[in-house]
Amino acid sequence: MTDREIGVAVLGLGNVGGEVVRLLADNAADYQARVGAPVVLRGVAVRSVGADRGVDEELLTTDAQALIDRDDVDVVVELIGGIEPARTLITSALAQGKSVVTANKALLADHGAALDAAVRAAGVDLYYEAAVAGAIPLIRPVRESLAGDRIDRVVGIVNGTTNFILSSMAASGAEYSDALAEASRLGYAEADPTADVEGYDAAAKAAILASLAFHTRVTAEDVYRQGISEITAEDLDSADAVDCTVKLLAICERVTGEDGVDRVSARVYPALLPKTHPLATVDGAFNAVFIEAEAAGRLMFYGQGAGGTPTASAVLGDLIAAARNKMTGTAGTGESTYAQLPIAPLRDTPTRYHVNMQVTDRPGVLAAVAEEFTRHGVSISVVRQEDTAVGASLVVLTHTARESDLQDTVAALGELEHVNVVTSVLRLEGTGE
Amino acid sequence: MTDREIGVAVLGLGNVGGEVVRLLADNAADYQARVGAPVVLRGVAVRSVGADRGVDEELLTTDAQALIDRDDVDVVVELIGGIEPARTLITSALAQGKSVVTANKALLADHGAALDAAVRAAGVDLYYEAAVAGAIPLIRPVRESLAGDRIDRVVGIVNGTTNFILSSMAASGAEYSDALAEASRLGYAEADPTADVEGYDAAAKAAILASLAFHTRVTAEDVYRQGISEITAEDLDSADAVDCTVKLLAICERVTGEDGVDRVSARVYPALLPKTHPLATVDGAFNAVFIEAEAAGRLMFYGQGAGGTPTASAVLGDLIAAARNKMTGTAGTGESTYAQLPIAPLRDTPTRYHVNMQVTDRPGVLAAVAEEFTRHGVSISVVRQEDTAVGASLVVLTHTARESDLQDTVAALGELEHVNVVTSVLRLEGTGE
Repeated sequence: MTDREIGVAVLGLGNVGGEVVRLLADNAADYQARVGAPVVLRGVAVRSVGADRGVDEELLTTDAQALIDRDDVDVVVELIGGIEPARTLITSALAQGKSVVTANKALLADHGAALDAAVRAAGVDLYYEAAVAGAIPLIRPVRESLAGDRIDRVVGIVNGTTNFILSSMAASGAEYSDALAEASRLGYAEADPTADVEGYDAAAKAAILASLAFHTRVTAEDVYRQGISEITAEDLDSADAVDCTVKLLAICERVTGEDGVDRVSARVYPALLPKTHPLATVDGAFNAVFIEAEAAGRLMFYGQGAGGTPTASAVLGDLIAAARNKMTGTAGTGESTYAQLPIAPLRDTPTRYHVNMQVTDRPGVLAAVAEEFTRHGVSISVVRQEDTAVGASLVVLTHTARESDLQDTVAALGELEHVNVVTSVLRLEGTGE
Repeated sequence: MTDREIGVAVLGLGNVGGEVVRLLADNAADYQARVGAPVVLRGVAVRSVGADRGVDEELLTTDAQALIDRDDVDVVVELIGGIEPARTLITSALAQGKSVVTANKALLADHGAALDAAVRAAGVDLYYEAAVAGAIPLIRPVRESLAGDRIDRVVGIVNGTTNFILSSMAASGAEYSDALAEASRLGYAEADPTADVEGYDAAAKAAILASLAFHTRVTAEDVYRQGISEITAEDLDSADAVDCTVKLLAICERVTGEDGVDRVSARVYPALLPKTHPLATVDGAFNAVFIEAEAAGRLMFYGQGAGGTPTASAVLGDLIAAARNKMTGTAGTGESTYAQLPIAPLRDTPTRYHVNMQVTDRPGVLAAVAEEFTRHGVSISVVRQEDTAVGASLVVLTHTARESDLQDTVAALGELEHVNVVTSVLRLEGTGE
């Protein structure tokens, strides 16, 4: 095998692509030793050649397909993002027997089944450690290290932009719009922050994690999703009053129904989390994922969830793994969806709730409110009443309840004479109840 | 392949072995789906058959060698521990082309090179996720997920017994002997706690982690080792006074010498750690490992480091991986020791120090002490003097200094007229200086 080389095509030269190209050059000797053959960059596909891209101009091409088609390309690294042309290019690479490394969570969450079929047919690797929680090794630990265990729950802070915004609201008392503006100014939020702040990015990651954890195909559409754009400074104050913070959580859970059937619940929403929970201290742009497994117990993985260099670390780890497999003519562990658990509808998923409402400050209001919760089968844990400029605010923290019962309660509260408005309904997670 | 089975031999039926056997039965259907063939327990080697071992008696045997030799055994799970007979049995299994899963850190740390040669010759797997930090996925992330990165430092709390003792001393103000007695009573310390409290267990783990992180063969003998048996309640008070806690740390570090050569420093000792450091909050029997890599930045892995069930999770993850490879006739990524970095002697390794001494309470003592540090090239960060019943105690916190300079300083302090005794010298880690 002395003449063997592993040829690499990189598609896309953004923050991550640039770092991948740089590290491929800087670490060439190490990669050769680790793989057993030189890992050689054949070319980089970009939208337009020209200007100084920090890469040898001869390596640049605008013809991604031609680059993939080269006989001397063994592994394709897709860093374009989005559905097309990424999907067509990856599918073509797989069909030609080339392994693929990608960070494209949207594509994986929406088209995982088709990609998996193509991977199986070709007997190659499709690796995507960088698609979830950036530099944090998560896909391989869940797929391989925990392969002998039964995972019950995965709860993660997997979006750095929203975590930065919520951390900064908690620290400074700022309103959402000001915190978002600060995040944009510092480069933590994109010009159009929708994918991050409305939870689409976290939902795609939740779909990928749930698929792996429960050996079941879960798509982004199966994930209940709610973003952070309606979180107010008052919500954070109110969380603080019960020793909680607010985090955008991606939750993947095995839920055993009353019929004895295991289902997968995957959901993304801002939730109260006790300050003593390990995820509560994960601040700023950091990510962390908490896993509960039957035998392993509680595990936590923490690190940088975004940024060109950390993400490049994950991409390159996958690239080395794919290159090693190419050298031995094998492929790593692929998808496993044998369990095919049904998806649990949100309305049957039990959680705790934190309901905040403005009420008229007069005797009997608290009793009337409590009565509505009881009537709908929602048990109350704590009630807190505070005077405000315009009346009084009443906060109710429930025990575990079904979403449908809670929604019925909230609808009924709106009809009560002295409840002016239900200002927010947030879930409470991580109390182990 | 429809008739194919993966036959498993388990050697040893202690806490971990018992859980492995139980989970093999409980999860049989899942394992079959994940591997693509039934994973079948062929037998369990024990020291003596008889009594109720919770295992079908027909599966028990005292002849481990005969069990390994069976044609229908594909993977051997070694959970006997210690060097012999484990080494002979594992070597025999490998020579017969069987893959091996083990949690035997002492064997790996002392005989890694010979085992690795046997693995290469046979083209099989030797997996040992359970040998370091129990259930926490660590070996696979370091070996595979970070294969494209350059690791600079691994710092871990990898021994649950000592962490339990130090956490309990910090929480209650207890002396070492009382905390050890409590740990024994609660089952966190063995009857002979030497391997844990004197740091031998952590040193073996440090050797394994350093080998992986730096692609260099590191044995337990290369690891500087100091246990916790001389830590006093006063040390913990004194750490608390500078907002630190005391943890037994396993540190594996790439140290670039004045000659420009990279060396590996591997060391285990109790050290002060700022309370704001992520490892400082890891209490009780939990383990955590902090990794700094060039591209990935800071990562942390947290979970249960010991106990039958968590350790069994790691063993079974390895077993599934080995079984999957058996099905495809391949082997996973093996050892990589191409870098062969030299070992850095402790005396050239720079750290910060916390020196505690009893002095006569009179003017000029502090100046004389400071003068000794300066004369030996050790720069002082903080000095704190406190009156005690027998005079005064003086605590000096240094900036980064060389071990040899610090040792010379401590020797010279002992000669000073008004320094009665140097009560403790502890290192300070995790300040990023």
